[in-house]
Amino acid sequence: MKLYEKVAQTISERIEQSFYQAGEKLPSIRALSLAHEVSISTAQEAYRLLEDQGWAESRPKSGFYVMNRQKAPQQLPDISRPTQKPVDVSQWEEVLNLLSASTTPNLVQLSRAIPDLSAPTLKPLTRIMSDLNKNAQGSMLSYEDLRGARSLRLQIARLMVDSGCRLHPDDIITTAGCQEALSTSLRAITELGDIVAVDSPSFYGSMQAIKAHGLKALEIPTHPETGISIEALELALEQWPIKAIQITPTCNNPLGYTMPIAHKKRLLELTARYDIPIIEDDIYGDLSYISPRPPSIKSFDTEGRVLLCSSFSKTLAPGLRIGWVAPGRYGNQVMHMKYVVTASTPTLPQLGIAEFIAQGGYERHIRKMRAQYHQSRDVMIGWIEKYFPQGTKISYPQGGFLLWVELPDEIDTSTLNELTMTQGVSIAPGVLFSASGKYRNCMRLNFTDRPSERNENAVKLVARCIREMVSKL
Amino acid sequence: MKLYEKVAQTISERIEQSFYQAGEKLPSIRALSLAHEVSISTAQEAYRLLEDQGWAESRPKSGFYVMNRQKAPQQLPDISRPTQKPVDVSQWEEVLNLLSASTTPNLVQLSRAIPDLSAPTLKPLTRIMSDLNKNAQGSMLSYEDLRGARSLRLQIARLMVDSGCRLHPDDIITTAGCQEALSTSLRAITELGDIVAVDSPSFYGSMQAIKAHGLKALEIPTHPETGISIEALELALEQWPIKAIQITPTCNNPLGYTMPIAHKKRLLELTARYDIPIIEDDIYGDLSYISPRPPSIKSFDTEGRVLLCSSFSKTLAPGLRIGWVAPGRYGNQVMHMKYVVTASTPTLPQLGIAEFIAQGGYERHIRKMRAQYHQSRDVMIGWIEKYFPQGTKISYPQGGFLLWVELPDEIDTSTLNELTMTQGVSIAPGVLFSASGKYRNCMRLNFTDRPSERNENAVKLVARCIREMVSKL
Repeated sequence: MKLYEKVAQTISERIEQSFYQAGEKLPSIRALSLAHEVSISTAQEAYRLLEDQGWAESRPKSGFYVMNRQKAPQQLPDISRPTQKPVDVSQWEEVLNLLSASTTPNLVQLSRAIPDLSAPTLKPLTRIMSDLNKNAQGSMLSYEDLRGARSLRLQIARLMVDSGCRLHPDDIITTAGCQEALSTSLRAITELGDIVAVDSPSFYGSMQAIKAHGLKALEIPTHPETGISIEALELALEQWPIKAIQITPTCNNPLGYTMPIAHKKRLLELTARYDIPIIEDDIYGDLSYISPRPPSIKSFDTEGRVLLCSSFSKTLAPGLRIGWVAPGRYGNQVMHMKYVVTASTPTLPQLGIAEFIAQGGYERHIRKMRAQYHQSRDVMIGWIEKYFPQGTKISYPQGGFLLWVELPDEIDTSTLNELTMTQGVSIAPGVLFSASGKYRNCMRLNFTDRPSERNENAVKLVARCIREMVSKL
Repeated sequence: MKLYEKVAQTISERIEQSFYQAGEKLPSIRALSLAHEVSISTAQEAYRLLEDQGWAESRPKSGFYVMNRQKAPQQLPDISRPTQKPVDVSQWEEVLNLLSASTTPNLVQLSRAIPDLSAPTLKPLTRIMSDLNKNAQGSMLSYEDLRGARSLRLQIARLMVDSGCRLHPDDIITTAGCQEALSTSLRAITELGDIVAVDSPSFYGSMQAIKAHGLKALEIPTHPETGISIEALELALEQWPIKAIQITPTCNNPLGYTMPIAHKKRLLELTARYDIPIIEDDIYGDLSYISPRPPSIKSFDTEGRVLLCSSFSKTLAPGLRIGWVAPGRYGNQVMHMKYVVTASTPTLPQLGIAEFIAQGGYERHIRKMRAQYHQSRDVMIGWIEKYFPQGTKISYPQGGFLLWVELPDEIDTSTLNELTMTQGVSIAPGVLFSASGKYRNCMRLNFTDRPSERNENAVKLVARCIREMVSKL
């Protein structure tokens, strides 16, 4: 442990033990440096880490304060109990509804998974792209290398060191967002009719890919804090000819959990035993509230068994449509599929993002956003516990900007969404996250925006609609 | 016929009848206006049309001159004789080689199908994108509507009027280049193992999609001037359970022909009789040397049978990765496939192109490029006839910037390409354009660049390599 990490740990332990109370001012950098006999810069580093970890927040021209930390929600959702056999994925109409709602003006979209795009730390990226566009005289207009711009692949390889991966830029293929990464990976390793095991609830985009590719989904019980049940998966592997596993183990969508490292390793060992690949969706991984971010399953993989899929859609901006896949031993198949699907990834945003990362803009932005989402999570959980009916269960996200809410069994969240939509608020009905129409009493909400009255009112409105529905039961 | 069209016709007839010789100065605008008793602006319009049609060229500060028109090549390629049964598409390694070569520095790439990106008429597009990026404060960063930006779909619908199509913006889905349009269309209308009939030679990108999707290609004999043989296709339809037809009927890649209107109509009638869809690749359609451009098959389709695929990759720039599909009655399936494959099309280039078209930039650029490619075609054919061995057969493109060369049977163009590559020139071996390894003595060359000594030397070099190979036979 480095010196500044030690100092930071001391402070965080004192906060945990309530020596410092929420909202209280912490020692100044100078005071900290004197008290711990460390340099000013070490004290600064310690506070930076405490900010990253969500223990402290800095207030301009004032100093550091203890973050108003929310305790874990009173009631977490239960471990999921999906249909325990392979099914054809349904719910496309519901997904289409969700996506189409985004064009409704003035809607408070608690439904979508779009990051905060108003952050000032994104500004340098648009400036870089604007300059590149103006100055590069046509080179932005041509195709890039089939694998993607080398400068970007180099930067991605560097970023991935944070998740424990040591990759060569040529181990990476850039894609049109994470969706292309997931979809081409899936196609590359399966054949028509194959069974794919998924965590459950699971991201609807990857489940729709399972549907579109003529595969079957086998939903595995999933714990709201530790992720896919290894025991249940093992039973399923014994029972069914599963061809691949597709999961989001770090800052899960929609539950927000991060699988413990030991679970990740056990999962990898299990797939090695059955010799099947894992599609690991790591799109929210860099938004973990814990710094340094948790390792990916890919980082433990010495056999090229894991196809890691990610993108800049949640960390930077989805409209850029830049993602990537590190396909391990399946590189040739993924490359062929990528070529036939889109031929090449857009040039300008690739070079723009590469430059943004190289200049340190990515790291700065991510640090800000992690802290913002961490804080918004606590506020959001607070609002839900305050306004929603007793017995509401809430997941406890460890990163990202999404959480999962479980309501009484009688409430159908698709109906709820129809109700809230007429009053300008959208939620993501739970049924979207099941291949087989489960989770009708659940929903996913985002907390991307900085807490505001507008958003608090949106949560109140959802609560009011729930009560209205309950009263009619 | 409008007045200026009449005036232009008179002049073009005089050129045809050799009243005006190649390279000769034509009457000034003022003289033309006096001679035909029309206004100055009508005379200007007439010259603009003559330029568009490739009869005249303007030289700055001098006036208009008769274009140095090339007669059709002395020998056209024969009608193709592909394998007349469904085959699994091969040649992925060869495609990968071709694509990888593009990163070799200082290579004269006669192989690729990339338009001239140095044209000054493209500058306003990069300026518009740069401004949008700078001023739009984040709205460039978000997802667009699943169908694509409405402003762009509106402009595409307007452009498509030129090819005879009357579509609503909601009949159009934007895609990540034409490749996504082709690939999603193919997936939307076929199932594993289905047979797809294709023109032959045919674009390798769409054939690789056939391969990747587990389909079989049935190559139909194709005439170098009129396209796919309707008679051969009819026989094939009787013999095989063909599920779809995929062709590039206007400014074909690689041959350059445009199917006559009567053939397009007959083809459509034939598919109606067998009730199968057509995937029409129109990517080069707007680059026809004839103005107004020829109608698409889609324009005659009243049943929603044609999925028209296109993009701005050949007319503007491939690095933007913006294409579209007008999927007719298959809209739902294509939309689902588009969603699972890339989720959404990049925002900035969509809005940039929409604005560029709205400002008139697209029309200006296309007019310039048509004239340039028309002229380059004639120069290119001249070089090939001058330098290549006797008996070389050359296609006679009616649009676009690609032509097809047939060498003596003994010459393997893959070997030829290896030879020319060591000396800094790439060609596209004919085998790429066959599902079954045919056309080994053929190649595709582009003539995107303005004629230059560098390119003439490249053609000479290819010719020298051919002679070297012949001498070793």
